[in-house]
Amino acid sequence: MPAGELRYPSPPENSTTEISAANDEEWLWSQIKAEARRDAESEPALASYLYSTILSHSSLERSLSFHLGNKLCSSTLLSTLLYDLFLNTFASDPALRAATVSDLRAARVRDPACVSYSHCLLNYKGFLACQAHRVAHKLWTQLRRPLALALHSRISDVFAVDIHPAARIGKGILFDHATGVVIGETAVIGNNVSILHHVTLGGTGKACGDRHPKIGDGVLIGAGATILGNVKIGEDAKIGAGSVVLIDVPPRTTAVGNPARLVGGKEKPTTNE
Amino acid sequence: MPAGELRYPSPPENSTTEISAANDEEWLWSQIKAEARRDAESEPALASYLYSTILSHSSLERSLSFHLGNKLCSSTLLSTLLYDLFLNTFASDPALRAATVSDLRAARVRDPACVSYSHCLLNYKGFLACQAHRVAHKLWTQLRRPLALALHSRISDVFAVDIHPAARIGKGILFDHATGVVIGETAVIGNNVSILHHVTLGGTGKACGDRHPKIGDGVLIGAGATILGNVKIGEDAKIGAGSVVLIDVPPRTTAVGNPARLVGGKEKPTTNE
Amino acid sequence: MPAGELRYPSPPENSTTEISAANDEEWLWSQIKAEARRDAESEPALASYLYSTILSHSSLERSLSFHLGNKLCSSTLLSTLLYDLFLNTFASDPALRAATVSDLRAARVRDPACVSYSHCLLNYKGFLACQAHRVAHKLWTQLRRPLALALHSRISDVFAVDIHPAARIGKGILFDHATGVVIGETAVIGNNVSILHHVTLGGTGKACGDRHPKIGDGVLIGAGATILGNVKIGEDAKIGAGSVVLIDVPPRTTAVGNPARLVGGKEKPTTNE
Repeated sequence: MPAGELRYPSPPENSTTEISAANDEEWLWSQIKAEARRDAESEPALASYLYSTILSHSSLERSLSFHLGNKLCSSTLLSTLLYDLFLNTFASDPALRAATVSDLRAARVRDPACVSYSHCLLNYKGFLACQAHRVAHKLWTQLRRPLALALHSRISDVFAVDIHPAARIGKGILFDHATGVVIGETAVIGNNVSILHHVTLGGTGKACGDRHPKIGDGVLIGAGATILGNVKIGEDAKIGAGSVVLIDVPPRTTAVGNPARLVGGKEKPTTNE
Repeated sequence: MPAGELRYPSPPENSTTEISAANDEEWLWSQIKAEARRDAESEPALASYLYSTILSHSSLERSLSFHLGNKLCSSTLLSTLLYDLFLNTFASDPALRAATVSDLRAARVRDPACVSYSHCLLNYKGFLACQAHRVAHKLWTQLRRPLALALHSRISDVFAVDIHPAARIGKGILFDHATGVVIGETAVIGNNVSILHHVTLGGTGKACGDRHPKIGDGVLIGAGATILGNVKIGEDAKIGAGSVVLIDVPPRTTAVGNPARLVGGKEKPTTNE
Repeated sequence: MPAGELRYPSPPENSTTEISAANDEEWLWSQIKAEARRDAESEPALASYLYSTILSHSSLERSLSFHLGNKLCSSTLLSTLLYDLFLNTFASDPALRAATVSDLRAARVRDPACVSYSHCLLNYKGFLACQAHRVAHKLWTQLRRPLALALHSRISDVFAVDIHPAARIGKGILFDHATGVVIGETAVIGNNVSILHHVTLGGTGKACGDRHPKIGDGVLIGAGATILGNVKIGEDAKIGAGSVVLIDVPPRTTAVGNPARLVGGKEKPTTNE
């Protein structure tokens, strides 16, 4: 079993608060290029791949737009159209680019299997699906809904990640493994949330309108958890793998089981069945 | 949060009983074309996509066959072969076309996030997987099993929806989100059934032959539910999200939990553990 | 309902112990070619597909390498590069080829829906993901990690099967349906293990280093089961569908439920909640 993990140097602590977002992006992009150059040297079979996806681009947003366009295109939805769409959206919205940077850091810090920023940028379908969703969400808010829905559909086909373009998602998000994630139209996700694969933020089927969960900052949702209805998961709460949650979960509290019961944390443990 | 949903006009009530299936298909196809024209006008970036997938075709079956062929083709299984296969099958079987129409109506009526028929036709992988399955099933019953299995495999790869070609499925079916659905060889699904993502209709591993669930008309199966064995889910029953069901569920009854217990409905609630 | 399943003749009993691995591979390859010839004759629409994937190749490893290269390639990771990579790895490692043969037999014997070896070779995404993983794992152990991770990413995108390249997997493995399987970095799987779809062998999120399950020989893990942490599942144990397992499971014991409790087998049944 490989004991040590292949890791590139981590960024200095608290760097995000000390330097501007633009400098932060610049620093990260220089790291990514350095990683890609090292990998291309050690693995000539990947040199052409790394050149086309990273090293030939002049910025993180261009590299990401190219990579997403290639992944999400089809014979009827061309990669050039998608590339332009992604690039124009990222280029015109610094908040989107800051969210990308924040997501890359989240994967690097929270996922022990994430060995480098370039590894996340190129290989994490949860990361890629989330960036594409941010663009789809922006289109949705601009009332370009048919295009938002076409993009949503491609993300679901290609990454098996199904996030309705109306769903609002914060930054510093880690979708780990990501396969099978489903997030409904009126769901809201805060900042620094970690969501494992097969997680559903869905409706109960009984309501229309605002019918999906609201997830607070810092929440961790385990693999296969299903959270249904317009319930509130408080900040820093933990939802156990395989849980079925139909109730509010207070901040800093853990919920487990099917149906989920609260099992500790700041609030007094309570059984809810 | 977008309050209102983008919706096109609904069809008149009871239209299916009042007009013939052919007229029904005709009406729906004219709606789809009108929606596509509107979307192409409002979103020039999609005009070419909408022309190639919808507006250039003379019928719903041609549009659907083209779209499925494009989605399911590979470098060794060509889109032209698949297009001919789909078109010949749909063209020769009015019951298949009526099922397509019925499925489109089901998505539009039952899914609050479905904004138009064309949205479903183009973007719902559950809808597309189901239509392709109907063709695979027809090939299976015609003893063209290697071709049925090749198609099955492509549907599973492309949509992450794994329906054995022998499984029999009624009409008016909504596979919502659809990622991860697995339906076994001897499963039977009635009419007007709604099945969420990650649902398994599987075997227990202990039996050969007829070993998969039988799902009655009007059943709703929640996200992540696992129903195993040759059990009978009665009409209009509801299966809760994340349930593991190894027993018969009477009509109009709800089953929840792992293992599932019956919790109300017409029949007296019973605990089954 | 089609009563009989389409099946080709099974191999003679105990053939693996009586003839050498090379002969075994030879015998299987001749079977696969015979099956493909029969299918091509009965279904001319598939003749070209079967020729390019099976009949034009001189060995099982060439056919498999071609098929995997075609499935896993992208516009930036070319099929020729992948084909060479797979072929060189299989050609240089008889143990990998023996594992492939063993996996094909496992699918044929254990899955009632598996009608032929060629059906598994061409259509089972669990089989294909597992073979590609073995190559990624070999690259990982050779410290060619960026390439291993690129391959891992493609397997996850294309098959929705996410096996970390460091995970060690035995032979005679059946990944049935396979969609949504996630296997972590330090997981170890023995021989003759059957794993259904949506199964997670993950971490609890509390540990670094050796943090994933160890699965003994002959274990069966049902659909949607989630096994978390560095726990040991003893040989021939059974894990029920939808279970959430956070504890060791003794050999020949069954665990079911969320959280899982032990319900029989050789060891005295114990409740663990």
